Amino acid sequence: MASLRSWFSIPRGSHFSLANIPFGIISTASSTKPRVAVAIGEHALDLEAFAANNGFSGLSTIQPHQTVFSEPSLNAFAALGRPIHSVVRKYIQSVFSEDTTYPDVLKNNSALQKQALLPLNEVRPHIPFKIGDYTDFFAGLNHAYNCGVIFRGPDDALQPNYKYLPIGYHGRASSVVPSGTPIRRPNGQILLNPTAEKKVPTFGACRKLDMELELGAFVCGSNEQGVPIPIEKAEENLFGVVLMNDWSARDVQAWEYVPLGPFNAKNFGTTISTWVVHADALEPFKTKGLENDAEVLPYLKQKSDKTVYDINLEVDIKTSSGSKATVCKVSGKNLLWSFPQMLAHHTSTGCPVNPGDLLGSGTISGTSPSSFGSFLEQSYNGKESIQIAGGEKRTFLEDGDEVTIRGVCGTDEEALVGFGECVGRIEPALTLSFA
Amino acid sequence: MASLRSWFSIPRGSHFSLANIPFGIISTASSTKPRVAVAIGEHALDLEAFAANNGFSGLSTIQPHQTVFSEPSLNAFAALGRPIHSVVRKYIQSVFSEDTTYPDVLKNNSALQKQALLPLNEVRPHIPFKIGDYTDFFAGLNHAYNCGVIFRGPDDALQPNYKYLPIGYHGRASSVVPSGTPIRRPNGQILLNPTAEKKVPTFGACRKLDMELELGAFVCGSNEQGVPIPIEKAEENLFGVVLMNDWSARDVQAWEYVPLGPFNAKNFGTTISTWVVHADALEPFKTKGLENDAEVLPYLKQKSDKTVYDINLEVDIKTSSGSKATVCKVSGKNLLWSFPQMLAHHTSTGCPVNPGDLLGSGTISGTSPSSFGSFLEQSYNGKESIQIAGGEKRTFLEDGDEVTIRGVCGTDEEALVGFGECVGRIEPALTLSFA
Repeated sequence: MASLRSWFSIPRGSHFSLANIPFGIISTASSTKPRVAVAIGEHALDLEAFAANNGFSGLSTIQPHQTVFSEPSLNAFAALGRPIHSVVRKYIQSVFSEDTTYPDVLKNNSALQKQALLPLNEVRPHIPFKIGDYTDFFAGLNHAYNCGVIFRGPDDALQPNYKYLPIGYHGRASSVVPSGTPIRRPNGQILLNPTAEKKVPTFGACRKLDMELELGAFVCGSNEQGVPIPIEKAEENLFGVVLMNDWSARDVQAWEYVPLGPFNAKNFGTTISTWVVHADALEPFKTKGLENDAEVLPYLKQKSDKTVYDINLEVDIKTSSGSKATVCKVSGKNLLWSFPQMLAHHTSTGCPVNPGDLLGSGTISGTSPSSFGSFLEQSYNGKESIQIAGGEKRTFLEDGDEVTIRGVCGTDEEALVGFGECVGRIEPALTLSFA
Repeated sequence: MASLRSWFSIPRGSHFSLANIPFGIISTASSTKPRVAVAIGEHALDLEAFAANNGFSGLSTIQPHQTVFSEPSLNAFAALGRPIHSVVRKYIQSVFSEDTTYPDVLKNNSALQKQALLPLNEVRPHIPFKIGDYTDFFAGLNHAYNCGVIFRGPDDALQPNYKYLPIGYHGRASSVVPSGTPIRRPNGQILLNPTAEKKVPTFGACRKLDMELELGAFVCGSNEQGVPIPIEKAEENLFGVVLMNDWSARDVQAWEYVPLGPFNAKNFGTTISTWVVHADALEPFKTKGLENDAEVLPYLKQKSDKTVYDINLEVDIKTSSGSKATVCKVSGKNLLWSFPQMLAHHTSTGCPVNPGDLLGSGTISGTSPSSFGSFLEQSYNGKESIQIAGGEKRTFLEDGDEVTIRGVCGTDEEALVGFGECVGRIEPALTLSFA
């Protein structure tokens, strides 16, 4: 493999080192058609322009497929399969490598550098995939336990099924938005007095607006309806990973969720980071997940015990007055179930998946409050305050609050594999009038 | 309005009378590209061919938009909006009318008749919409009550939220298939002994495979994320209705559904009929739904009390030995919530909807066993047998069983507004092996 030192200027500490090469969709003010790019340092390499100017002259494998880079989503590129992604990513690494064997492609081609290497701050990132279906799981054991303690007490915190299957629900694909999109506080039905004998809800602005720190994985493969993807093939059907904030209206959820699960509490917005870190880039950061003391059924058993990713995740809050705090630090490894297990379970019925489908991990929490990935857990459902700064505190999110999730693998400042940011700011609820 | 008698031969009793004009997507053996059509009697009118041969010469409104008829889904046509659908449907009615004012378009144009009027038995119907998101509701009050009685007893049959909001969950869009597609019995996690103290599931073929008689409504409008569709605008955002069979794995559901709702129990297949009956055609059959004795919140209040459709629905079973029975007869009006109420509730949080989104009503049941829309209810969760014929009986579906849902509005044999059929046959589960 070529050196991971580059002839191109990549700042120390960049999330987008040569060890990363995440894929995304971009446009610019002067070229508004969304197309495929990779991020490198403080730049995006426009792969449509790169391909059109013989950038892939050293990689014959991709040449018949180059139109995928002109698509407004990663779906077509992802559908080419893991082996193709791998050679494309490695080729781009080699093109940028200090000792590149393809100096004429870009290193010595200032015209193409000018055309295809775009400063990230002049680029508009778009949602990376056209999402067909979005499924959200509940694989964060500590989160599931914490929620169970809050609502049912410690003796009955986990449901009997929890350790046998990756609990999940179908989410709302249309509501997934790219980082930076404002999130409007939803209105909904709320039971203001849950202990009253007669339960009569009101309709109004959510009072318990929460965030959820998650990872999302994009599917690149597909299966025929009725035919499962076995666990040993699951990994090759996953493209890569993003940060995810599954905004949640806890009061709406509490009233609506029995018996069919969360619905309106979750369908007003889910934010994802815009650069998809390819599974190959995450491979060195695989590690063991949380211990499962139940006997996992054969269709969910993985050969390796390194099934999840050690990603350093952080959540920052910035209030409208400018006060800031990092309210959560936790590793992405705090999961009972891996993405391959989720995919194997999901398709075990023969449910068809397609390139661009999104799997959410569920909220990732550690075991101490400063590692809890939701305000529900941190505030114990509103009973305790989270300190921000300057005397400000929170139980749930207030209007104007901006939530930023960050994630990065590794400690070598010249070889970080990072996700960039997943940001959303809360806008006030609409005041609705009725005839 | 033109006469509803036609110069074209439409058999008495046809579901596709001149009063109907349902829209769909077809291809033929000689012309395999899917495109838009309407059904009329025992024929499909290929609207791509019709448009290309000046069929719409009498309707200038549609002429700038005629490419929608060459699309492989109804999404683009639906997105033109209800007023356009209405004039297109009325124009086609007038073209086929005995006293048509456009005789040269089709009546006296045998060349175009030959080209565009295709016998239905030579036509392959496709899934009518590219479904972005699919949501399944639970608006059948009698079904909800029956399920509640089975699992919790009559005193606690309905949850406290049931009469205040249309309970729903996000379904799996990728699993929706057109009538006629075989349905493979899913494998899944099942708790064979639910009363055992230690709850350990097995993995295997579903033993309680069920059908659910539902109606589905397709969305034609859209909303900006964060901005609800108010109840008084909901109707204009709905295109039309299909029959739906939401196949369900009851044993998988029982084990998995707490706390996030049904997931794998519902994602292996949902069958819909292929001709979408436009809302205009259903307008004369609007009637009152089931009485709601709770105070409905203003955002869900409709001006008219005629909010649901009086559709005569039937479910037939044919076993692999050829025994047949009609196991259910019920009216589509057995709903507590209407499709406009479902859409208003769904978007009340600002959840974005798009043309081609599908809303399922939930299982439609009456109050007597022969009107129950699922085997779960008819067999009281497997405790009682449903008689088929020739000594055959069922509690749930067996391999080789074919389920056919039929639906029709009206009694005038020359002016029926019918849905055709929604058919699926059960194939045996795959035997899965694990390394």
